[in-house]
Amino acid sequence: MNLATPARPASLPAAGSPIRLTESPRGLQRIPPQSGTAFILRRGQRLKVIDPLGEQVSDLFAVKADEPACRLSSGRSLDYAGKLYLSTGDALYANDSRVMFSIEEDTVGRHDFLLTPCSQEMFEILYRHEGHHPSCFENLHTSLARHGIRPEDIGTTFNIFMNVTIDPQGRITVGVPHSRAGDHIVLRAEMDLICGLTACSAEGSNNGTFKPIDFEIL
Amino acid sequence: MNLATPARPASLPAAGSPIRLTESPRGLQRIPPQSGTAFILRRGQRLKVIDPLGEQVSDLFAVKADEPACRLSSGRSLDYAGKLYLSTGDALYANDSRVMFSIEEDTVGRHDFLLTPCSQEMFEILYRHEGHHPSCFENLHTSLARHGIRPEDIGTTFNIFMNVTIDPQGRITVGVPHSRAGDHIVLRAEMDLICGLTACSAEGSNNGTFKPIDFEIL
Repeated sequence: MNLATPARPASLPAAGSPIRLTESPRGLQRIPPQSGTAFILRRGQRLKVIDPLGEQVSDLFAVKADEPACRLSSGRSLDYAGKLYLSTGDALYANDSRVMFSIEEDTVGRHDFLLTPCSQEMFEILYRHEGHHPSCFENLHTSLARHGIRPEDIGTTFNIFMNVTIDPQGRITVGVPHSRAGDHIVLRAEMDLICGLTACSAEGSNNGTFKPIDFEIL
Repeated sequence: MNLATPARPASLPAAGSPIRLTESPRGLQRIPPQSGTAFILRRGQRLKVIDPLGEQVSDLFAVKADEPACRLSSGRSLDYAGKLYLSTGDALYANDSRVMFSIEEDTVGRHDFLLTPCSQEMFEILYRHEGHHPSCFENLHTSLARHGIRPEDIGTTFNIFMNVTIDPQGRITVGVPHSRAGDHIVLRAEMDLICGLTACSAEGSNNGTFKPIDFEIL
């Protein structure tokens, strides 16, 4: 197993500069707790995201590799699926209605696509946190910066293993993930993609502890 | 009553060019069926959106006037509200967690913030429509283009009067709007905003007929 390079701030390429496509990592990769990474996923490759210890969320964002205005879209995906909970056989769409991912396997069946990645401001607003708090949003935008993706381009993420329920009055509850050690999801890339992936930093989404996330490109 | 200028294609200002702020329209404005418009809303001004005939949806999108990377965010707003259905007393947040709008009045209480505006591709994918179909997405991006907003910057809209329900299994149903003739919502701008607003073009969201939407800046 290789340790994925932890997210680190990178200077942003100038607007319009060509995106540098790095090779996809080989073998099983581990994202340390409360961190994130970014990588290329070629069309036809499969991304397997594994919860190695259980009850740990992983936020996924993606843009088309050669066309970064084509971005993952929660609103399009939910509209086309006609449901909140996407699983095997469902697709994740871009903002221009092209299919980015197809879900090929899913041993959990409960992932969130409503909420934005946790952020510094979220910890301050919802939890009155003071001082820096690691967050999926920071880990995504610092990891994706080296591919020319700006923070404002990162919208609602596909929050793998995140357990969000809605009651009949529309109240949103974030519960303990259903994932147990070894549970996984496999997403097939339907276009060349730049992906950002995290081991989520929010206490409230991961039953109070921070664990790693494993992934492999098949 | 004035007829709002129908959306028309406009050449996009060069990236980084200053945004030209036009004056806010005065008096009661009417957006004709299946069209849209864009306007400036200054901090402290109130936007009153009225359903003049009943059962008609109006999609709203906004960016900060002097900082277009600051955009309306469904995912942040739902996370901070902890509920799907925003109404009087709730706030609509930007992607950077600043408050864009506060809802001051709401005679309906059922609006959607899950789904992206209807688009040409949506009519093709969900309804097998052939040929051009007017859509909120087209009406928003052509109206907002003259303010330098690009299509890819338009994410999930606040879909005023749209009646979307979720069953316990997470299935999404688009129902008949609860709004009756004269129902309205009043949103206070908490920053200077560029707003796009439509009279929705989707048969399925408006009980089969297309009606106008009225608005007034107070």
